[in-house]
Amino acid sequence: MQTIKLYDTTLRDGSQGEGISFSVGDKIKIARKLDKLGVHYIEGGWPGSNPKDMGFFKEAKKKRFKNSELVSFGSTRRAKISPSQDENLKSLIKSGTRTVAIFGKSWDLHVVDVLKVSLQENLSMIKETVEYLKSRGLTVFYDAEHFFDAYLKNRDYAMETLDVAVQGGADAVILCDTNGGMITSEAGAIVRSVQNQFGISLGIHVHNDSGMAVANSIAAVEAGCGIVQGTINGYGERCGNADLCVIIPNLQLKLGYKCLSNAKLKELTEVSHYVSEISNMKQQDNQPFVGRSAFAHKGGVHINAVMKNPASYEHLNPEAVGNHRRILVSELSGKTSIILKAKEMELDLSKDDPHTKKILKLVQNLENQGYYFEAADGSFELLMNKVMKKYKPFFALEGFKVIIEKREDNSLISEATIKLKVNNIEEHTASEGDGPVNALDNALRKALAEFYPALSEMHLSDFKVRVLDAKAGTAAKVRVLIQSQDERSSWGTVGVSENIIEASWQALVDSVEYKLLKDQRHR
Amino acid sequence: MQTIKLYDTTLRDGSQGEGISFSVGDKIKIARKLDKLGVHYIEGGWPGSNPKDMGFFKEAKKKRFKNSELVSFGSTRRAKISPSQDENLKSLIKSGTRTVAIFGKSWDLHVVDVLKVSLQENLSMIKETVEYLKSRGLTVFYDAEHFFDAYLKNRDYAMETLDVAVQGGADAVILCDTNGGMITSEAGAIVRSVQNQFGISLGIHVHNDSGMAVANSIAAVEAGCGIVQGTINGYGERCGNADLCVIIPNLQLKLGYKCLSNAKLKELTEVSHYVSEISNMKQQDNQPFVGRSAFAHKGGVHINAVMKNPASYEHLNPEAVGNHRRILVSELSGKTSIILKAKEMELDLSKDDPHTKKILKLVQNLENQGYYFEAADGSFELLMNKVMKKYKPFFALEGFKVIIEKREDNSLISEATIKLKVNNIEEHTASEGDGPVNALDNALRKALAEFYPALSEMHLSDFKVRVLDAKAGTAAKVRVLIQSQDERSSWGTVGVSENIIEASWQALVDSVEYKLLKDQRHR
Repeated sequence: MQTIKLYDTTLRDGSQGEGISFSVGDKIKIARKLDKLGVHYIEGGWPGSNPKDMGFFKEAKKKRFKNSELVSFGSTRRAKISPSQDENLKSLIKSGTRTVAIFGKSWDLHVVDVLKVSLQENLSMIKETVEYLKSRGLTVFYDAEHFFDAYLKNRDYAMETLDVAVQGGADAVILCDTNGGMITSEAGAIVRSVQNQFGISLGIHVHNDSGMAVANSIAAVEAGCGIVQGTINGYGERCGNADLCVIIPNLQLKLGYKCLSNAKLKELTEVSHYVSEISNMKQQDNQPFVGRSAFAHKGGVHINAVMKNPASYEHLNPEAVGNHRRILVSELSGKTSIILKAKEMELDLSKDDPHTKKILKLVQNLENQGYYFEAADGSFELLMNKVMKKYKPFFALEGFKVIIEKREDNSLISEATIKLKVNNIEEHTASEGDGPVNALDNALRKALAEFYPALSEMHLSDFKVRVLDAKAGTAAKVRVLIQSQDERSSWGTVGVSENIIEASWQALVDSVEYKLLKDQRHR
Repeated sequence: MQTIKLYDTTLRDGSQGEGISFSVGDKIKIARKLDKLGVHYIEGGWPGSNPKDMGFFKEAKKKRFKNSELVSFGSTRRAKISPSQDENLKSLIKSGTRTVAIFGKSWDLHVVDVLKVSLQENLSMIKETVEYLKSRGLTVFYDAEHFFDAYLKNRDYAMETLDVAVQGGADAVILCDTNGGMITSEAGAIVRSVQNQFGISLGIHVHNDSGMAVANSIAAVEAGCGIVQGTINGYGERCGNADLCVIIPNLQLKLGYKCLSNAKLKELTEVSHYVSEISNMKQQDNQPFVGRSAFAHKGGVHINAVMKNPASYEHLNPEAVGNHRRILVSELSGKTSIILKAKEMELDLSKDDPHTKKILKLVQNLENQGYYFEAADGSFELLMNKVMKKYKPFFALEGFKVIIEKREDNSLISEATIKLKVNNIEEHTASEGDGPVNALDNALRKALAEFYPALSEMHLSDFKVRVLDAKAGTAAKVRVLIQSQDERSSWGTVGVSENIIEASWQALVDSVEYKLLKDQRHR
């Protein structure tokens, strides 16, 4: 079974997608998730192009990656200077990765019209850059930008650019369809011809402008590429990059290549959703393999047939990629994970315990409504405790009111009032804030402070709002995720409602209650 | 130049997509649009399966279609009856189309496990059904359901099913990848082998479960299929059908087949947008050829290169499909992108114009505060018009107030009041809503409705909330992005504030004002 190396560029090329803007923290989170999944290479960024990418590599050095190798990306040296003088290459080396990717021009149009250097100088730029980086002991991947267009327009020159990269010592050459316009039959034939001429390790990097990025990547592998570049969910400039979430199962489950262990492959759907969550991009429902609708059956004929034999309308078993059929919700599938989670939370639960079934049903029901417990362990633990009747409320809400007023002078005031009871003692407080949620947060803490002084130890460290069915416009459901922490730990909580204030309120209350519950347990 | 016949099944197979539900009126609108575009066949529905589809054919008979032929769809006769007794076939004939499409089973798994008839009976069902319909003087397309899976699992039987359809007199045989799991190289090879065995006219119908529906359709044409089935925007069950909006330009602009006139091809982007509007589905931004981001450039390096030579980062001229280049304005971009953006908006601006510098500074300043114009072309155009003093406000806000109240019985009310002036006439309105932003949206529309009736044409299609400095917890700044659309176009607007209501308000106001400004310009 031939192994295909997975090279993820979500953090670099994926971040060029319209609407995507990663913080350093986002990038670290995604890199850790990819490492856990087991992709072979993670391209972290272009340290020479912006300080944020350099910040990522600095931060990443402090982490331990178990399965993936970090790669830093840059261009060939500028014209007419030596590689050692090039700032971009200095940053590349400074980033500290053992493997680097260097892109250079294959297409004479780019050399002449864009770089405006001679064809000969471009060849020197490629060769000297690769040589220089090799002399620093690095593994060097050479990205042949626009290689396919170049091959069709000026084959001899395109091949020469690969030749000098190989002479320079490149460890692998990545053939790029940068404009994404290739047709699959053509792409396959071109890779085959390069494979025949150069004996070295080849990779493929394609964009989706002709709508064939996945097919082109697969054809390239069939023609001899051993490295596949792509991004999670196909994020990337214009029409995106090739989608690794679609390529991986095709290669592994249909064509018999090895990319990940079969166990890890089952995490693919979760990884796809996680990255879409961090990127704040809506998950594509009809995304092959990992989308919510990928194994959803609507037609009655189809549903009946699938009950008789799933293969009748499913091209493979959804569980192989961690997805599931949307009409047959198997109760057994989730029980194990509930039990494991309970154990983590020091709750005793067995498979036959009726609570297990009840919790599973409740979780399925709530997730259907838009809750997302993976990022809200606090809310999930409260839910389990409530079902198991191990929970006594810390306070009873009698009501709240939030007023936001904008005056003619453009001033803006947010005020919240809360009425609640603790042990039958009523508290009625009011507070202003930076916006309605902050006002509510302030009023709640004010009301509880006297009864639960420990609340002053905790604070909110993250606050995320996600619009679910965005098409409903301002009447859409929103999900609020809050991350809170105190000195000992951090926890996530979730709320869902058409009303953003209500959704925030649910997550706020869970956050406070989780803190109190946790303190109680560890006393 | 070989002509490829386009066969659209948006109205039949496309309507199986999750979230799609067409009325008869919707179907008529889409059919007329497809006729105008010039597709050769429009599959209108399955009259035997539901009354709505029969209603469509009844209604469609009254219209005149200039370029397209309507097709009605059905299955082979039921087991052990004669075709003339079959209700489904009676409906088919009653629908009144000159051409009909009949699907039958090619895969023995389906015959045995789903239909539960003998392999021999299935062959008779196919042959007799085709014969019967031919005897009624109809043109008959035979859809070989699951043909590719069938070919791989039991080739002899699969070929036999085609053979009987041909014997029955089918005018064309459509090879279907119903489960959508094919790999492109395989799909091409199978079509070629069928082409070699049967001399008749072949068509292709594929689903996108392996993410290769477009590539598989193209490969099938290269292997000899002269009819391509698909849907607008790739709508369809699970991962969708092959997207005609992507297939057509590939065939015509890249491979030299003829599908539509070049003039009609320029309507493709508009058709895609129109169908997404009627279907109430969000247009996919990164959809190849016709998506809003399909020719959008973000990185500074790319923008500069495209200015020097568009071919450097565009696989073809966007105008060929009625789309256009978009330069995404961000703090990283310079004067050039501002000028290009102005041109896009029919504003005259040169590099030396002091307005250019002023706009650039303002954009940089606002993006520093968290605005994000890349996804908010509407807000950006308003900003340019304001700086260039080409903008007169459509109304003056005097104030608003939003109240959210939660009572002890857990009921929740959101109410907004707005006071504003249009041409010195004061309006004071109140409205409730699903949450505070929706209440505000409703109250604003109510206040403006009388003065600007055109606002009823627009609606919000997307609503995104992103917490910026998330560490500030509930006091964090948030950015609200709103996407709006009417029948002609879609636009994005943005608002930023620590107060989510204020941020939403800014984006809402921009959205409405942009609509009014745009209508003014095109009057």
